[in-house]
Amino acid sequence: MEQHRTEINTLGEFGLIEHLTKDFGLRQPSSLRGIGDDAAVIDNGDHLTVVSTDLLVEGIHFDLMYFPLKHLGYKAIVVNLSDIYAMNAHPKQVTVSIAISSRFSVEALEELYDGIKLACDQYGVDLVGGDTTSSLKGLIISVTAIGQGEKGKLAYRSGAKPGDLLCVTGDLGGAYLGLQILEREKQVYLSTPGIQPDLEEQKYLVERILKPEARKDMIELFEKNRLVPTAMIDVSDGVSSDLMHICKASGVGAIIEEAGVPIHEEAKMMALKFQMDPLTAALNGGEDYELLFTIDPKDIEKVRLLPDLYIMGEITEASEGVKMHSTGGKIHDLVAQGWKHF
Amino acid sequence: MEQHRTEINTLGEFGLIEHLTKDFGLRQPSSLRGIGDDAAVIDNGDHLTVVSTDLLVEGIHFDLMYFPLKHLGYKAIVVNLSDIYAMNAHPKQVTVSIAISSRFSVEALEELYDGIKLACDQYGVDLVGGDTTSSLKGLIISVTAIGQGEKGKLAYRSGAKPGDLLCVTGDLGGAYLGLQILEREKQVYLSTPGIQPDLEEQKYLVERILKPEARKDMIELFEKNRLVPTAMIDVSDGVSSDLMHICKASGVGAIIEEAGVPIHEEAKMMALKFQMDPLTAALNGGEDYELLFTIDPKDIEKVRLLPDLYIMGEITEASEGVKMHSTGGKIHDLVAQGWKHF
Repeated sequence: MEQHRTEINTLGEFGLIEHLTKDFGLRQPSSLRGIGDDAAVIDNGDHLTVVSTDLLVEGIHFDLMYFPLKHLGYKAIVVNLSDIYAMNAHPKQVTVSIAISSRFSVEALEELYDGIKLACDQYGVDLVGGDTTSSLKGLIISVTAIGQGEKGKLAYRSGAKPGDLLCVTGDLGGAYLGLQILEREKQVYLSTPGIQPDLEEQKYLVERILKPEARKDMIELFEKNRLVPTAMIDVSDGVSSDLMHICKASGVGAIIEEAGVPIHEEAKMMALKFQMDPLTAALNGGEDYELLFTIDPKDIEKVRLLPDLYIMGEITEASEGVKMHSTGGKIHDLVAQGWKHF
Repeated sequence: MEQHRTEINTLGEFGLIEHLTKDFGLRQPSSLRGIGDDAAVIDNGDHLTVVSTDLLVEGIHFDLMYFPLKHLGYKAIVVNLSDIYAMNAHPKQVTVSIAISSRFSVEALEELYDGIKLACDQYGVDLVGGDTTSSLKGLIISVTAIGQGEKGKLAYRSGAKPGDLLCVTGDLGGAYLGLQILEREKQVYLSTPGIQPDLEEQKYLVERILKPEARKDMIELFEKNRLVPTAMIDVSDGVSSDLMHICKASGVGAIIEEAGVPIHEEAKMMALKFQMDPLTAALNGGEDYELLFTIDPKDIEKVRLLPDLYIMGEITEASEGVKMHSTGGKIHDLVAQGWKHF
């Protein structure tokens, strides 16, 4: 009997996870949240343990032609810590497993671990475990971050309510434009080997993709100001896609004000150079690792004066969909494009 | 300037981890144990959280020509749970990340997740997180297991003392011989396609490699009998190699009685068929996922009547080295061969 074959890309990344894990229930009383948020949540009596994991594959998530190993090690840690912060929790430990082909030398791995150590030092987390093994091809990095949260203070994707304010930290689209710069330089290099790119002028954008930071500072500010977001996610796939996750999990709609979308001056200029709408880069770019979150409107005084934080829109009823109010006055649907790895 | 290049295989798997992580200290008060045991240990106030992680790579750790995906999913979970049990702790949650090439269909992944679910059901653990992404080549599986242990009751590799009894559960070498059978059948199949192997006769040995079990039952028996091993490790690399880990971490030596090494009848017969010393298979085979542990001699009454448990030798002073007392009366050095993935 011929077996039916369904191609993976017909489901997409999120559809695939949902499909494969739909029959897995939670049976341990300590398993408070499983798959479907930035991190899993485990009840440990006194407080909550928050766990997030990521698998990074050479050629899919990074290109070693322009990604220095030290930066890669740094970023592999930071993107996982970002998931823990996005729960309004504090990362404490990480484990790192790598699979490597024989093309890598010990010195190359030392560079990777230098970056891992730098991130651990920067964010005050401990490397407590891992595995190293061979791969048939390329470098694979698996990172698990473990954090601690306070009961009643975690921010899930599912807590947004109509009327909540939609906020975002930092600025958007920079990482995507930084990647475009690196891709362009790679093509130049491939056609004219020996040419060394001068990226000094685009330093901000290139750093956004090569050395992103997680918003530990924001979580600390929230704590200081006794603010608990009603829902939160980190901007990894792109604001439009990440906002959809919040809306889906919370059963709400949202409207973004175009004028409220924070875009860095350099990102605007570079987008125009690439003949791209800066707004498209900002909403669909991804990998900015900023925090996208919602707050109860009564908390507005707690955020109004916080630096590097922008009110970008509002949560609406689910029936109103997810919309954008353009500076030209028009309202149209927001479409989640995001980055696809399938 | 030419950079110096050191090949990875000059360090070996354990040497490489040690080398790369030697400058990483622990700074979080909750990080009780980091790299160097079966699992990391995190203090959570009421109890301890135990975390273990593994990265499995197609072509390095498994061959899909004879490893059914459902079994692979089951085994990927079980080997991680085994690490948690080897701490004398109870696994509660797992995360599973996979990277897959487009050669895999949704149906193939369903089989993999059927096996993952079967293991979760069997051991009562919850799947709480993960990641799915593309790979350039083959299947990569990263599993992290999270468990709970009681303060004062964890069994580290470092607690063995001279005079302690060396014990092992189950029997040894079966998984290695099962693998030899599968490798032989693969060669037969490659030279005469269409031939279907009849593995029914070697069912026990083939199951040892394709569907290993973790010794949850033993940890429960220990609890019931109020036994806390002074040191423990699971048999993944082979008893000789795993015993070396205990001896190194505890700063002790050991002597194994050849007559005390448990070997299944089928394993003995198959070893002879392969013209191999059954003892060599038992000591160096690996992947048996039995528990190798030491106990205080005053606890001997607690283990003497336990089923499927064997006293195999004794812990000695470090200066006496790690030895084997053969049935012929000779004493010789034990050499850790284990399985090498580099």
